[in-house]
Amino acid sequence: MRLLVANPNTTPQVTELCATAARAVASPGTEILPLTGRFGAQIINSRAENAIAGHAMLEMLAENVAGADGVLLAVSYDTGLLAAREVLPVPVVGMTEAGIAAACLLGTRFGLVTFGTPFIYQELVAQQGLTGRLAGIRAITASPKDAYADPATVDAKVADAASALVAETGAEVVVLCGAAMAGMPARIRDAVPVPMLDGIAAGIGLLEMLVRLKPAKARTGSLAHPGQRPTQGLSPALAALLAAGA
Amino acid sequence: MRLLVANPNTTPQVTELCATAARAVASPGTEILPLTGRFGAQIINSRAENAIAGHAMLEMLAENVAGADGVLLAVSYDTGLLAAREVLPVPVVGMTEAGIAAACLLGTRFGLVTFGTPFIYQELVAQQGLTGRLAGIRAITASPKDAYADPATVDAKVADAASALVAETGAEVVVLCGAAMAGMPARIRDAVPVPMLDGIAAGIGLLEMLVRLKPAKARTGSLAHPGQRPTQGLSPALAALLAAGA
Amino acid sequence: MRLLVANPNTTPQVTELCATAARAVASPGTEILPLTGRFGAQIINSRAENAIAGHAMLEMLAENVAGADGVLLAVSYDTGLLAAREVLPVPVVGMTEAGIAAACLLGTRFGLVTFGTPFIYQELVAQQGLTGRLAGIRAITASPKDAYADPATVDAKVADAASALVAETGAEVVVLCGAAMAGMPARIRDAVPVPMLDGIAAGIGLLEMLVRLKPAKARTGSLAHPGQRPTQGLSPALAALLAAGA
Amino acid sequence: MRLLVANPNTTPQVTELCATAARAVASPGTEILPLTGRFGAQIINSRAENAIAGHAMLEMLAENVAGADGVLLAVSYDTGLLAAREVLPVPVVGMTEAGIAAACLLGTRFGLVTFGTPFIYQELVAQQGLTGRLAGIRAITASPKDAYADPATVDAKVADAASALVAETGAEVVVLCGAAMAGMPARIRDAVPVPMLDGIAAGIGLLEMLVRLKPAKARTGSLAHPGQRPTQGLSPALAALLAAGA
Amino acid sequence: MRLLVANPNTTPQVTELCATAARAVASPGTEILPLTGRFGAQIINSRAENAIAGHAMLEMLAENVAGADGVLLAVSYDTGLLAAREVLPVPVVGMTEAGIAAACLLGTRFGLVTFGTPFIYQELVAQQGLTGRLAGIRAITASPKDAYADPATVDAKVADAASALVAETGAEVVVLCGAAMAGMPARIRDAVPVPMLDGIAAGIGLLEMLVRLKPAKARTGSLAHPGQRPTQGLSPALAALLAAGA
Amino acid sequence: MRLLVANPNTTPQVTELCATAARAVASPGTEILPLTGRFGAQIINSRAENAIAGHAMLEMLAENVAGADGVLLAVSYDTGLLAAREVLPVPVVGMTEAGIAAACLLGTRFGLVTFGTPFIYQELVAQQGLTGRLAGIRAITASPKDAYADPATVDAKVADAASALVAETGAEVVVLCGAAMAGMPARIRDAVPVPMLDGIAAGIGLLEMLVRLKPAKARTGSLAHPGQRPTQGLSPALAALLAAGA
Repeated sequence: MRLLVANPNTTPQVTELCATAARAVASPGTEILPLTGRFGAQIINSRAENAIAGHAMLEMLAENVAGADGVLLAVSYDTGLLAAREVLPVPVVGMTEAGIAAACLLGTRFGLVTFGTPFIYQELVAQQGLTGRLAGIRAITASPKDAYADPATVDAKVADAASALVAETGAEVVVLCGAAMAGMPARIRDAVPVPMLDGIAAGIGLLEMLVRLKPAKARTGSLAHPGQRPTQGLSPALAALLAAGA
Repeated sequence: MRLLVANPNTTPQVTELCATAARAVASPGTEILPLTGRFGAQIINSRAENAIAGHAMLEMLAENVAGADGVLLAVSYDTGLLAAREVLPVPVVGMTEAGIAAACLLGTRFGLVTFGTPFIYQELVAQQGLTGRLAGIRAITASPKDAYADPATVDAKVADAASALVAETGAEVVVLCGAAMAGMPARIRDAVPVPMLDGIAAGIGLLEMLVRLKPAKARTGSLAHPGQRPTQGLSPALAALLAAGA
Repeated sequence: MRLLVANPNTTPQVTELCATAARAVASPGTEILPLTGRFGAQIINSRAENAIAGHAMLEMLAENVAGADGVLLAVSYDTGLLAAREVLPVPVVGMTEAGIAAACLLGTRFGLVTFGTPFIYQELVAQQGLTGRLAGIRAITASPKDAYADPATVDAKVADAASALVAETGAEVVVLCGAAMAGMPARIRDAVPVPMLDGIAAGIGLLEMLVRLKPAKARTGSLAHPGQRPTQGLSPALAALLAAGA
Repeated sequence: MRLLVANPNTTPQVTELCATAARAVASPGTEILPLTGRFGAQIINSRAENAIAGHAMLEMLAENVAGADGVLLAVSYDTGLLAAREVLPVPVVGMTEAGIAAACLLGTRFGLVTFGTPFIYQELVAQQGLTGRLAGIRAITASPKDAYADPATVDAKVADAASALVAETGAEVVVLCGAAMAGMPARIRDAVPVPMLDGIAAGIGLLEMLVRLKPAKARTGSLAHPGQRPTQGLSPALAALLAAGA
Repeated sequence: MRLLVANPNTTPQVTELCATAARAVASPGTEILPLTGRFGAQIINSRAENAIAGHAMLEMLAENVAGADGVLLAVSYDTGLLAAREVLPVPVVGMTEAGIAAACLLGTRFGLVTFGTPFIYQELVAQQGLTGRLAGIRAITASPKDAYADPATVDAKVADAASALVAETGAEVVVLCGAAMAGMPARIRDAVPVPMLDGIAAGIGLLEMLVRLKPAKARTGSLAHPGQRPTQGLSPALAALLAAGA
Repeated sequence: MRLLVANPNTTPQVTELCATAARAVASPGTEILPLTGRFGAQIINSRAENAIAGHAMLEMLAENVAGADGVLLAVSYDTGLLAAREVLPVPVVGMTEAGIAAACLLGTRFGLVTFGTPFIYQELVAQQGLTGRLAGIRAITASPKDAYADPATVDAKVADAASALVAETGAEVVVLCGAAMAGMPARIRDAVPVPMLDGIAAGIGLLEMLVRLKPAKARTGSLAHPGQRPTQGLSPALAALLAAGA
């Protein structure tokens, strides 16, 4: 099984960290193919950067989807999720969507711990229709870069934030949002009284499940390919993907 | 990995069919251990039978959980789901919950096709907090028994119901609810314009993912073990499970 | 009018206290018949115990419903409410459901004060579809046993919790959840600035109203009797109730 | 117990019919005191007429509340419900609110059958926070006047509408909205497969329960009396009620 | 364009302040015609006073609507909004409704700052269907009278309350509710980190837009004129408005 | 006042039609500056095309915002709305958002008539938090091109669709979505029994109101400029807009 791990940030180091985390949890026989965004923000952290990254995401997926069995969006904003699901012939899973889906199997209400401001996560949860199960979101005062430079300190901050979420909101499971938190649940499990998940690990697991289930591609509805669509000014691969039809 | 496939109906044939479907999708190395309810309805089809089956489910899980890595509730009402998740030390997944969780990764709104009346399914969806993504529910005029006796006819009825759901409600993915529909998605995929899933296949996949993620057991909240609880009149194993404490 | 007051806890003292509270508010001519669970938890306080109690509740109601005009579930989790309503020929009311229904006639938003953890109450409110009117839930650090041993202290704790709910959440009426709080509203009314209700008193009142209205039993829908259902391993009365048909 | 049955329509015949229906279900010892609106529409059937009737309702209640133990709003729009509950020292129940509250004890989802257009009823249900339990509303092509002139024909229309609601929406209980439908549930119970309720009967029953429970008047919140309020141009009794303070 | 600015409080000074604020923002050629309530509360501050004011509002609009192009309800409870919209032939906008509608174009979630208790505002937001976008409501400890007597002090209190709303609730825009806050956004904009709006300014702007768009009057639905309605005891103009038909 | 009318489709004819419609309703002194997308779909009609257009929209706004007072997104999917609102210093309004905001001032529940499939509109309504007021969506079998080529036929189709929405869903006001429907409400008002609006007209009106109100730019929250953000591969103007800081 060949899975794309697609990071629309333009920073290749982030991509490589995501790929490493993905490889650590992938089943034997699963090949991880990392991708990095060609244009846009170094680290996406606003609505506008995220909007631009939707284009960058589609461009890199169009160029690399041939031969792949599935796609993991390795960006905690799940950038371009529904658009990619619409035009690609293979299953597509977002890492935050994945963490939340798995969390719902472990707790009645889930919390999120993030590096950045909570608003886009709140909207992602709403888009999944799961606002009623969201206990709360806590942002830690550290960056992904800190997580790589000083993991012990960031581990402790995340554990504190997760424990506070549990105590204050009744969260029964916590999703750690951000590729830099991949692998962290195992390290801090004794410090937090509820199960934790990271989106890369959950996403690879869910994607492997979907690829094995071999669901048909939708031929109607909002996630069917829109048909032969003429465009201008796009990269050849992206133009071809849209022009190809269903 | 050893997974219990627990059917609280008192009809062993249904259990065996569930186990067969589970074995068909399980990964190499996953062992399926089927369980059948000791008391209650032959085929659960009402609120009262389902309430009784909650007790039967807990009783058989208490007797068999030692050595197991996870539990799939092989009953489309997900009978006793939260109670089992609370007191057992391993992950527990309900088959309808599983089908819906996977469906949410494939379509923005999902439909359900069932053998029986829709009301308990509607309440299960509400319990998952996903009412906003439910497109609709269609019941077919056939029984699980029919599905084994005359699969071609029931396949056609399910395909018709699923297609009608898509046309009338905009469902973008359809979950086939009922162990007797296991394996059906592959057979009727050409007849229905959106992806389909069955709960046994999705449930085994999700359970394997959870077992591999090794999430901690909650030590607080509504799904933590309630502590050393004295009871009377229960089976020894169930009494011991409740008395054991966290 | 003969009303069953059914307590699925296996502790007869709790039953007798519920019956006493019920008799204190019943109209002249209303006879109260107390019932105690045969198996399960001494005091139900978890999801698993509540699931087991659903069976115990149905069993004792099946044995005693002949000649009764209505049923009050004398357990603050309203254990087995919809299942009992489905299979019994007479009106069934849960004590927490009752307290909430009456509260909605007195305030725009209601609060709950309980002895135990709030989560099951929150789910009961959601099941009633009234989450939008729930101001909040406060648990006091005392047990039902304390309420009987040292009522003045527990009265004060409940009054404080109710007043805090009003001040912090804007609750306009407070339901005291738990049989051990029956009769308490009258004792602490000067200490709390909004009306209070207990579920036994409200439940007996609502049940008397329903019995007098003589509503027909549903012949269709999720609360109609499911028809002649074969079972195994159940008590003779419960098996007969399910086998009887509508 | 003395209960006001307050009809803000300016048609005394409607008042008398409500009073007759109320007396038919009242307990021994309950005295029914009918009131009729002094100004406004003969039969309220629009938002503007209903807004005017809010004033008329308060005026007549202010003049007559002395010595009363409770108030039933005998108008299916529950005109002035929260305003009356705020300023009066006794329990106030609206007839549609009452029918819905009782219906929620009999079915998981309720339907309404009305003489007029459904929109105000839909908003009343929303105000009660119960939109999630509303199965649907059906208006019959007949007037309250027809119900008195030709009850058999109107009974049949209501039975047909109620049965259609059940078949098409899954309503499990039906509330008949309108004073002219008082007593109808008993007459048509064989023709409709679910229980039915009328608001006058349910309202008298709920009011008797509340009066017996003797809940305190709110001293804070949106239903506390607003305090000594100066006004101009109002009837002496209404001015005095507002000026009186809490 | 002639716009009625209708204040149902019986205090003419309040009316004049509203009119002044309206004239300050009206486009050239827009004439502002102020109206004051004939009966009821001097300053509406309760449900009962608001119910009475609904009648007063309709009465004064009926007397003055001839020749007007639109109506602004200059009362922060938007008293009688839907009733006026139903029976009048011209657009009607409530000042709080207006502030909220404009706020939704500036922030994803809005807050409200008021002089009085928040409950009616909460219900107004619910009536607009916008509860999901309400971040919170803060009441300041000052009266409208204070705002005119000591504007600097009240400005500071409003700025503090607005800033607290932003910090504590994530409000992205704040609506200042109350005619006495008209013009305040410009004065305190440096002290609050999000945009602010007042209802008079927004209301005049929205009304001018609607008048220019010349939308048809509804001929069906809950906001169509109810037809020729007989009444008694009303002012001649109001009786004539209801009797006129569509 | 200078308003950008920004069409991210790459078809200049569509832009010109939007600009003409905007000029027809703009106040004297308002200058309309039309913009056309540089890359992407000729006519956006899918999620992927819309995602790409988000980038195109930001690029053209970055290049042209200097000197402008406000921005109308002249695309019925309101492409890039929140991203543009975040990074631009002036008010931004989407045409569908605008039509809906104005519609809420005219009816309690609104319907939409569109040229294309309804799903993205449904999600736009949800993003506005107004799902509870959406009566329904109807798509007509015609293209924007048809609307220009054969307006009488398309007018009739739209009138039929709007009338059907009113009859079947109770919509009390209808928004015509699509620039090609600008000006249509006036032509078909006699054929439809409720008011209608088009997004260009409503959008220009709302934008003029906002520009006159001079609300401050948010300095915090999800719509504040994210600060000095480094990027790569973007157009110089867009890179500069992101790098500029707040």
